[in-house]
Amino acid sequence: MPRDPSLDPFFNPKSVAVVGASNRAGSVGRALLENLLYGFTGGSERSSGFPGKVFAVNPKGGEVLGEKAFESLAAIGETIDLVCVAIPPKYITALMSEAADAGVKGVIVISAGFAEMGDEGKALQAQMVEAAKARGMRVVGPNCLGVMRPSAGLNASFGAKAPAPGSIGLLSQSGALVTGVISYSEQEKFGLSAAVSLGAKADVEDEDVISWLADDDKTKALAIYLESFQEPRHFFQVASQVSAKKPIVAIKGGATAAGAKAASSHTGSLAGSMAAYRASFSQAGVLQASTIGDFLAWSRALACQPAAEGPRLAIVTNAGGPGVLAADASALHGIELATLSDQTMAALNEVLPAVWSHNNPVDVIGDATPERYTKALEVLGKAPEIDGVVVIMTVQAMTDPAAVAEAIAKAHENPAWTKPMTASFIGLEGTDVGHYLDERGVPEFNFPERAVSAMGALMKRGAWLRRRDAPEPTHLELPPVDLDRAGKLVADAVDAGQKNLDLSRARDVLACAGIKYNGSGTAKDDDEAVLIAEKIAFPVVVKVVSPDVLHKSDVGGVVLDVVDADGVRAACGEIRRKIAERQPGARIDGFTVEQQVKGTEIIVGMSRDPDFGPLLMVGMGGIFVEVYKDVSFRLVPLSRRDAHDVIGEIEAQPLLDGARERPKLDRDELAEVLLRVSNLVEAVPAIEELDLNPLVITERGLVAIDARVIAKASS
Amino acid sequence: MPRDPSLDPFFNPKSVAVVGASNRAGSVGRALLENLLYGFTGGSERSSGFPGKVFAVNPKGGEVLGEKAFESLAAIGETIDLVCVAIPPKYITALMSEAADAGVKGVIVISAGFAEMGDEGKALQAQMVEAAKARGMRVVGPNCLGVMRPSAGLNASFGAKAPAPGSIGLLSQSGALVTGVISYSEQEKFGLSAAVSLGAKADVEDEDVISWLADDDKTKALAIYLESFQEPRHFFQVASQVSAKKPIVAIKGGATAAGAKAASSHTGSLAGSMAAYRASFSQAGVLQASTIGDFLAWSRALACQPAAEGPRLAIVTNAGGPGVLAADASALHGIELATLSDQTMAALNEVLPAVWSHNNPVDVIGDATPERYTKALEVLGKAPEIDGVVVIMTVQAMTDPAAVAEAIAKAHENPAWTKPMTASFIGLEGTDVGHYLDERGVPEFNFPERAVSAMGALMKRGAWLRRRDAPEPTHLELPPVDLDRAGKLVADAVDAGQKNLDLSRARDVLACAGIKYNGSGTAKDDDEAVLIAEKIAFPVVVKVVSPDVLHKSDVGGVVLDVVDADGVRAACGEIRRKIAERQPGARIDGFTVEQQVKGTEIIVGMSRDPDFGPLLMVGMGGIFVEVYKDVSFRLVPLSRRDAHDVIGEIEAQPLLDGARERPKLDRDELAEVLLRVSNLVEAVPAIEELDLNPLVITERGLVAIDARVIAKASS
Repeated sequence: MPRDPSLDPFFNPKSVAVVGASNRAGSVGRALLENLLYGFTGGSERSSGFPGKVFAVNPKGGEVLGEKAFESLAAIGETIDLVCVAIPPKYITALMSEAADAGVKGVIVISAGFAEMGDEGKALQAQMVEAAKARGMRVVGPNCLGVMRPSAGLNASFGAKAPAPGSIGLLSQSGALVTGVISYSEQEKFGLSAAVSLGAKADVEDEDVISWLADDDKTKALAIYLESFQEPRHFFQVASQVSAKKPIVAIKGGATAAGAKAASSHTGSLAGSMAAYRASFSQAGVLQASTIGDFLAWSRALACQPAAEGPRLAIVTNAGGPGVLAADASALHGIELATLSDQTMAALNEVLPAVWSHNNPVDVIGDATPERYTKALEVLGKAPEIDGVVVIMTVQAMTDPAAVAEAIAKAHENPAWTKPMTASFIGLEGTDVGHYLDERGVPEFNFPERAVSAMGALMKRGAWLRRRDAPEPTHLELPPVDLDRAGKLVADAVDAGQKNLDLSRARDVLACAGIKYNGSGTAKDDDEAVLIAEKIAFPVVVKVVSPDVLHKSDVGGVVLDVVDADGVRAACGEIRRKIAERQPGARIDGFTVEQQVKGTEIIVGMSRDPDFGPLLMVGMGGIFVEVYKDVSFRLVPLSRRDAHDVIGEIEAQPLLDGARERPKLDRDELAEVLLRVSNLVEAVPAIEELDLNPLVITERGLVAIDARVIAKASS
Repeated sequence: MPRDPSLDPFFNPKSVAVVGASNRAGSVGRALLENLLYGFTGGSERSSGFPGKVFAVNPKGGEVLGEKAFESLAAIGETIDLVCVAIPPKYITALMSEAADAGVKGVIVISAGFAEMGDEGKALQAQMVEAAKARGMRVVGPNCLGVMRPSAGLNASFGAKAPAPGSIGLLSQSGALVTGVISYSEQEKFGLSAAVSLGAKADVEDEDVISWLADDDKTKALAIYLESFQEPRHFFQVASQVSAKKPIVAIKGGATAAGAKAASSHTGSLAGSMAAYRASFSQAGVLQASTIGDFLAWSRALACQPAAEGPRLAIVTNAGGPGVLAADASALHGIELATLSDQTMAALNEVLPAVWSHNNPVDVIGDATPERYTKALEVLGKAPEIDGVVVIMTVQAMTDPAAVAEAIAKAHENPAWTKPMTASFIGLEGTDVGHYLDERGVPEFNFPERAVSAMGALMKRGAWLRRRDAPEPTHLELPPVDLDRAGKLVADAVDAGQKNLDLSRARDVLACAGIKYNGSGTAKDDDEAVLIAEKIAFPVVVKVVSPDVLHKSDVGGVVLDVVDADGVRAACGEIRRKIAERQPGARIDGFTVEQQVKGTEIIVGMSRDPDFGPLLMVGMGGIFVEVYKDVSFRLVPLSRRDAHDVIGEIEAQPLLDGARERPKLDRDELAEVLLRVSNLVEAVPAIEELDLNPLVITERGLVAIDARVIAKASS
């Protein structure tokens, strides 16, 4: 995935022209030119603007903002790398050939009025992009805020402010969110390596930009605001390659609003576009934030701090209350509070006053001097039981805030310091002391919970990198599969008008995929029932087969816990006797004999998302599936690693591990089932939805005892 | 609960003296005097300080900060209302009589060195408080930051800054948290009606202060930081009276750190001090925040906005992205997005441009004028389907932020506006525009998620007030109870050395409390088994009674689904036959016959917290209880309202309501069980822990099918 050089002109142009430059106050054409010339709207110093050449183009000629206005790009008579366009849509297609003649390689179309305006606009947009592509030019937009590259002094947007140079690469579908983040960056003192508003994504898409940023030296972390994609699967393929190199934080607008679609399977009813996004984020190693506060905190931390090598946190504080609150916040982020070793305790005892907390949080006491912070951090920096440190300062009577900030920065700059660090200076945001650490690469936050949340992102990033680098999970011996036959079975069912496959067909399909079903069979009489039962492991369940009986249990038509051949005969007899008594005249066509399995119930399922395609689900089955929704998703196809990861996301891990003397799950076996379902639904696209529910964890392995296979209605 | 006038001198003194006033830079005695004289540390204008009389006391006499230093309180020769003390502990007891002679009514002991220093310190503290009480004086502290009453110009603390006057009453065990909140109040522009750091709480406790604030005109909402109490039950009794008048927001430090204690029952293992706190907060109507961000957001909103009359939110925004993120945040706070009525849609269509979102969030589009905000708010203000409004502004090219802020404030000031409103101006914190709304009573936040969280608090407050005002829940006819006999049964068990009561004793105890157990009995032979079964509703389970059989199921010693008398005989026969075959020689003493019940499993339990006393638990039972922990707690004794509330906190409500064709819970009946358990454990303190698990929801009501009753070991 080498960097696509076709995007270079957007970030590192030598010359930029504004087509539609205007003197009119409040116009986009004026804002664009001001931002290029002076760096921000309302500026006046050419030295604070783009250092390369900036040309104004306006068909009326004359002057704009004191600069000569060229009547056309051609009139400039020089090579131009990048053009920003703010003229009515209908003129833009024609502009493209003129631009190509002027050597332009990149065009930012700010103007709105394309695809969002209906069919005519769509056609206009297609023509415009076609015209650009045919001439080897790339297009950002239309209907966007523009592109900023602070390190190059480039503000090719109509946003009022420009961010400081920094190491977060920001990409947003919403232009308003770009301006919002820039405002936040002033308050929280961070910088951006790039800010790109993609607008309607007629040509340049998210994938293109994140690939480019992945190879950009200035970018240390990517922050993306997403609402929707043209091709989400492609985006996530690229994202997983990028996140191998650099951390990506994403916030997905519309995370909870999308309702689950009407569906026949449990999986279908629990899936929905958000589940697909969440699955994709997990699979691609993208950290999904759910609030703006976390989005910024995580991006800032990942852009300047290393990933943590484990989940164990130490908190250093000069006040009990905020330390305790930070400890509480850790639990919410899946962070462990490190248990200090005897060695660490002894070392802290030597450097701290006798009344220190003797525990984690390490309370260095309200009268803490800068030296006390330094010494405590020196000890914690060396402690192997600690993977990350959050430092808290509250201004108290004896505190010298500036000196404490300096001491913390020094401890962090010490070459022996290798752990990630975040900080919270209570109530000092917006002051020099509050930002002292930020400027030295330690992200500092106003609220302790945000410092902890940021540390959580560093720990999640570390955990993901470790999972990637871990040895491949175990492969199991595979029973043979026959996916061609599975496809035929489904096609036959559809031909027979059967959308919801009957159980015996569903079992056959699963058998073709090598998925074990509980033993069962249908017997005409008592002797055959015994033969079937003897082929199956006891205990078994004997059930009546009768077209007249609706609720078998109510009339005594089900006998559980049958443990031997005599028991099977006794069960058949008892069923006859009871039905004769309770529903006289009901026909008895025979008996089904099923292996009786008890144990923890898992659900495995698949549904097809309109945008993402097949999604696999795994979680706790049975009656709680819809209440606690303890299920997780992955996109098909799954890797073996994905299969193990998604099993690890189930909340009820203790039950899987055999709590309450239940049989323990063999994770390799469940992973195998997931891979087989993944293969099956890839090979047989006619399967629309699928549920294995429940799949029971038994002493002899996983056994499916009910299944639904729903075929696509033939079109 | 009339206001206790003994606390008046702390908030409205006419004269204040500092004992231990000092010129020494950095000393507490100097900071105290500066704060009283000038309002804050480092001040120099007497006009910005306390308008009443301020006296410096220092045994050396002379001058302190240019004021005459009196050698003693007596030397002042005037009546003094309040004294702040910053001298070594050993001198303070003696000071009390001197203070009383000078007419002092309140003493703030800043000095540390009392109870936290061991037995000697404890004795000193007791003497000091005794000396004060004997003379009718109240003591705040020792080891505290002090008291601030901004509306009276009083800063009787050694904190460096003073808050602006406002309507939040702050109470904190941690002095550092008081200074932190004051720093936050400068950034977020809110004021305090009072700030009290209670320190070691030797005399004045949280209860005293919240009672006083409940009747204080200046205080509209209370914000409390808690770590621990002397008498938590008493605090919560007072808190529930106070919260009937004014909202209370609390943050409990150490919320997740406290591990559950080792216990024999499920309830015991799930309880723990945090469960007790959470139960107490719910029961008392206190809103428990878990982060500083929410603590401030909720307090600010509750101090200036009315409680919401329902859970339905409308969001108004000029940018899609932040609006969508606010909508997502709503789901996290249990807020519903209002579905706009046809009438509201039509009214919005009239005042908004054609491209508005036509949905909630109401996107008034990036070029929104102030008038557009005004008109949209006018429509939403009248819409009966909306209970609260969050207004979002992002600064975009055409936005006039100050004018939009003004328009929002006007809409809010309109007498026709009655709904709660919160706002988020993206990235404008710390600017005049950012605080414009705050100053006009609409809490404004930097991140949209905080504006939504604040609205969530207004909605929770409203829901609690509505529950309080709702008619009393239904009373059911009570079967008679005999709690005296229950007590005797438990005492007998203890006498017999039985800490963990055997099942038959446990059943008897529950029967005395009027709690239904599943029918069962022990039979010597087949005939007796039939007699017992016939007394019980079929189906029944027949189990072997044998001293030799350990795992009954393994040897065929359990027969399920027995539906009639013949079945009972057949079951007894089958058990004999199988045991003879599988465990030859095992003695068979008889059979237990139990009513077989199936259905959703509930757990009800009780454990005793060392601080809070008996805690009742209710939630989903069975194997998931420890995994999903879908349980909630209440303090004993429960009111009928509490019983219904705690049932309503169970997450798996759909299962209780009979999802999947299961029997539906009769909530009145479960409430009755909770009240009976509450009565039982109050009447019989010798019951240490109790579990009804599971309690099954059947067509015929709730039936306990297993129980543990654990007695206190006799001492």
